[in-house]
Amino acid sequence: MAERGDDHAKQAVLSANQGLYDAIEAGDLDLMRSVWAPGDQTVCVHPGSEHVTGTSAIMRSWALVMANTGYIQFILSGVAVTLLPRTAETTGDVEPSLAVVSCTENVLSEAEGESVQTFAGGRAVANNVLVRTPSGWKIWMHHSSPVLLPEEVDEA
Amino acid sequence: MAERGDDHAKQAVLSANQGLYDAIEAGDLDLMRSVWAPGDQTVCVHPGSEHVTGTSAIMRSWALVMANTGYIQFILSGVAVTLLPRTAETTGDVEPSLAVVSCTENVLSEAEGESVQTFAGGRAVANNVLVRTPSGWKIWMHHSSPVLLPEEVDEA
Repeated sequence: MAERGDDHAKQAVLSANQGLYDAIEAGDLDLMRSVWAPGDQTVCVHPGSEHVTGTSAIMRSWALVMANTGYIQFILSGVAVTLLPRTAETTGDVEPSLAVVSCTENVLSEAEGESVQTFAGGRAVANNVLVRTPSGWKIWMHHSSPVLLPEEVDEA
Repeated sequence: MAERGDDHAKQAVLSANQGLYDAIEAGDLDLMRSVWAPGDQTVCVHPGSEHVTGTSAIMRSWALVMANTGYIQFILSGVAVTLLPRTAETTGDVEPSLAVVSCTENVLSEAEGESVQTFAGGRAVANNVLVRTPSGWKIWMHHSSPVLLPEEVDEA
């Protein structure tokens, strides 16, 4: 039902989701602000950190990330989009108003302020919740966390 | 608008959210299954791990967690519930159909299978997405990640 509309919505969601990573790569706080929903209930978890709540505080946290990051590049893999609510499963709404994007963030970064500049490759997993607003799909929640346990799985 | 209804919905969401932690504490996989939405697009991230997608795979992952956990107790703090969509901000729907619960998981656990049983205290941050279904609020996404960086904040 409304599959063509869903395809269109998924593309819009993916575009907004990509905006988050474009903003980090470019160190562009204005772009970062434009991809988030405004308000004091939005939520962001940076890898290894606690919750940051509210878009103003979240922007300050991104400013800190950007200030401490030289070169950074994200290659996303395993990107999956789910639109909610879905007809019949929840309230009978036809048009999706929320989306969950799951992805793996493959990160290449450079730490600034060190005498010998070092590059670090890393991998994090993220879940992003986006809401449909009058000005398009906006990020409501971003939760990114480090992948620490692959060796344990291999040893099992 | 519909504030009384929102209070009722928030209580229902919190009850469903608590069910997740009750199920882990009790090692009760049937209870765990009952608090999750069925389907192949649900998402779970255990601390330090990769995405697990789909409720069948998620239940297998919880079975593994339960099999490797002796005593475990969760004390939740900083629990915040946001109901979505919210009138006027998104689609004009009056009844919430999704919820985001943010909380800190303060964990006391015991590792089984060791000659000297050890207790470990730890802290993780979680974001849970719940959907309203005909059989009540169910968990759609659970993302829990370890808090690794408090010392860095202190040193700044």
